[in-house]
Amino acid sequence: MNNFTFYSPTYFAFGKDTEQEAGAYVKRFGGTKVLIHYGGGSVVRSGLLERVKASLKKEDIPYVELGGVQPNPRSGLVYEGIELCKKEDVDFILAVGGGSTIDSAKAIAAGVVYDGDFWDFYCGKRIENALPVGTILTISAAGSEGSPDTVITNENGMYKRGASGDAIRPKFSILNPALTQTLSPYQTACGITDIMAHLYERYLTNTKEVEVTDRQIEALLLTMVHEGPRAVEDSNNYEARANIMWAGMMAHNNSCGVGRSQDWNSHNIEHELSALYDCAHGAGLAVTMPAVFTYVMEQDVMRFAQVAVRVWGCQMDFEHPEVTAKAGIEAFRNFLISIGMPKNFEELGAKEEDIPKLVDVLCNGDGRPGYIRGFVELNEEDCANIYKLML
Amino acid sequence: MNNFTFYSPTYFAFGKDTEQEAGAYVKRFGGTKVLIHYGGGSVVRSGLLERVKASLKKEDIPYVELGGVQPNPRSGLVYEGIELCKKEDVDFILAVGGGSTIDSAKAIAAGVVYDGDFWDFYCGKRIENALPVGTILTISAAGSEGSPDTVITNENGMYKRGASGDAIRPKFSILNPALTQTLSPYQTACGITDIMAHLYERYLTNTKEVEVTDRQIEALLLTMVHEGPRAVEDSNNYEARANIMWAGMMAHNNSCGVGRSQDWNSHNIEHELSALYDCAHGAGLAVTMPAVFTYVMEQDVMRFAQVAVRVWGCQMDFEHPEVTAKAGIEAFRNFLISIGMPKNFEELGAKEEDIPKLVDVLCNGDGRPGYIRGFVELNEEDCANIYKLML
Repeated sequence: MNNFTFYSPTYFAFGKDTEQEAGAYVKRFGGTKVLIHYGGGSVVRSGLLERVKASLKKEDIPYVELGGVQPNPRSGLVYEGIELCKKEDVDFILAVGGGSTIDSAKAIAAGVVYDGDFWDFYCGKRIENALPVGTILTISAAGSEGSPDTVITNENGMYKRGASGDAIRPKFSILNPALTQTLSPYQTACGITDIMAHLYERYLTNTKEVEVTDRQIEALLLTMVHEGPRAVEDSNNYEARANIMWAGMMAHNNSCGVGRSQDWNSHNIEHELSALYDCAHGAGLAVTMPAVFTYVMEQDVMRFAQVAVRVWGCQMDFEHPEVTAKAGIEAFRNFLISIGMPKNFEELGAKEEDIPKLVDVLCNGDGRPGYIRGFVELNEEDCANIYKLML
Repeated sequence: MNNFTFYSPTYFAFGKDTEQEAGAYVKRFGGTKVLIHYGGGSVVRSGLLERVKASLKKEDIPYVELGGVQPNPRSGLVYEGIELCKKEDVDFILAVGGGSTIDSAKAIAAGVVYDGDFWDFYCGKRIENALPVGTILTISAAGSEGSPDTVITNENGMYKRGASGDAIRPKFSILNPALTQTLSPYQTACGITDIMAHLYERYLTNTKEVEVTDRQIEALLLTMVHEGPRAVEDSNNYEARANIMWAGMMAHNNSCGVGRSQDWNSHNIEHELSALYDCAHGAGLAVTMPAVFTYVMEQDVMRFAQVAVRVWGCQMDFEHPEVTAKAGIEAFRNFLISIGMPKNFEELGAKEEDIPKLVDVLCNGDGRPGYIRGFVELNEEDCANIYKLML
């Protein structure tokens, strides 16, 4: 196991009606003037935004609002949020929504206290300072409610890039599974896929003898295999939603990724798809992961056999472990299809003729060195081959 | 799943040589005058204490020392530590040792800033304020390095009781698996047993549909089944030590116990054994748990069958689930014996004629109402029957 540090100081309030305590939590964590940041329709329509405002008013905490966050959140709105916060002397940012809204809020939080262009953080600069952020989560997927990460799409070139720093870990996150019951089966399945991707990205490691984190990742994957279809079939299944919501946080606060190398090639390869086609990140991952896994399986056949046996219930073929390894990838693909995810470029709305462009931006965009590095180093030819496996 | 809050703000530094950063972490978390609290021989003999002092000197942080913590730490030394901290204006407590030392440090930390008798906290008063505590862990077992809990034995009657509060969660914990390589196989096995007990206490729940935490507990139990014997057989197996050390923290920071009722009857029943006979807590648990599980199995046969199948690899007997449930308890008992743990009163050094006394203190001591309550409510007769199962 590699040396590591782990720090997850977010205060989680989990369960029914917990959003009513939002104002009290803002106060507890020192907020005196709040930016409420959100996306659009559903947060307003469901009455959630009004309940959040009421809880702030109850604590006599003034606020301003900035809605309009899109899926694959954009840099333009971040600049707007930074200006608004400076003008209004905001000292706390409250994100009400899913991963896109939280990521946008984190970007604003970092940008407000930084003299330069906030995009510097998305070009490799570590985030050391930020306004405090709190979240009220409405989609189980990105894990941003417990992570030090944020992903933003730069509208100047449609680059989708990430930034990190403990300073943007939320001070508190309110997780009410009932708020996710309004999601469609498709949105729910996209979230399930994203959560499973966060687990697989950590599972694909070149570090040996990390049984404790292997087992934890498998535990969360098994939870998704059990609870995912239940939530897709019955939107109102609170228990399934609750299990998924906690698993989604644990999948990405890095408690099961410490002390080991990780992959993240699937995320990088997918980011170009959702940046170009504006498809849902989870849907893109559903098409991407089986292709990547098939392409890189030879790197460690026994690792793919292990997850096949332990998570997917495959029989171990001791004479031909690669048969078991492949069976596990197929089982995952079939699971994703069964919950309604797309299986190829066509179903995703992607086009074969764009592959050279996707590969170029992926491997060379924004200063990249002509390849991406994770579980396996992938050059332009490798990436093109992987996209072709998605046809 | 029940509503819950979860807050684990401890900064973990994990890996080889990390104890050399102790001074830097004390500084980072605001300490300017330190009490170094420790047990005895091994911390001194191994040179660890000198290394810790050197790292404090490097940061120009003055310190005083208080050694002498015993296993099953006593109230007397806590009073002594509180006086010393007040006299010396200590503002940070650094525990160097295992769970006993950390628990004693937490008790001192809470007592220094409290006007009354610190024992109030061990009679049910919540700990709301405390001096900051940091830890350098030398035994994987109690999980106190990441928990809000402390257990102290009151010498006035030999009551062993617990107290809790987020205020005593360590600010940082330094986990170097190499520091545990000096432990004997017996000490190692006691730690493994304690960790598995923290998992079983959370597994025995009456809350339904908590798949995510069931799976996480099983993951950590499976890790112990795999890594435990490797560490017992070869003290110098760093990788096994590392997996056990992280599993030990995760087993007790409550990340896998949230949203569900828990048991803790085995701990309560064992506490009277280690208080009276001063046996190792882990050894007491090894004798206690199979007896408790056998006695309460009828409460939820399917839960015991589930852990038997998922952790112990038992075949499910679908016509007679109780056969599988019992097989899982036997497999656990045999595992504990295989790593060198005692299996009954005699091997533990306990005496049958003391059972009435054990039961009386357990059920009536320190204001208890004549029974203990957990997965199942156990009255005096139940507790006597359980102790008899250990003969």
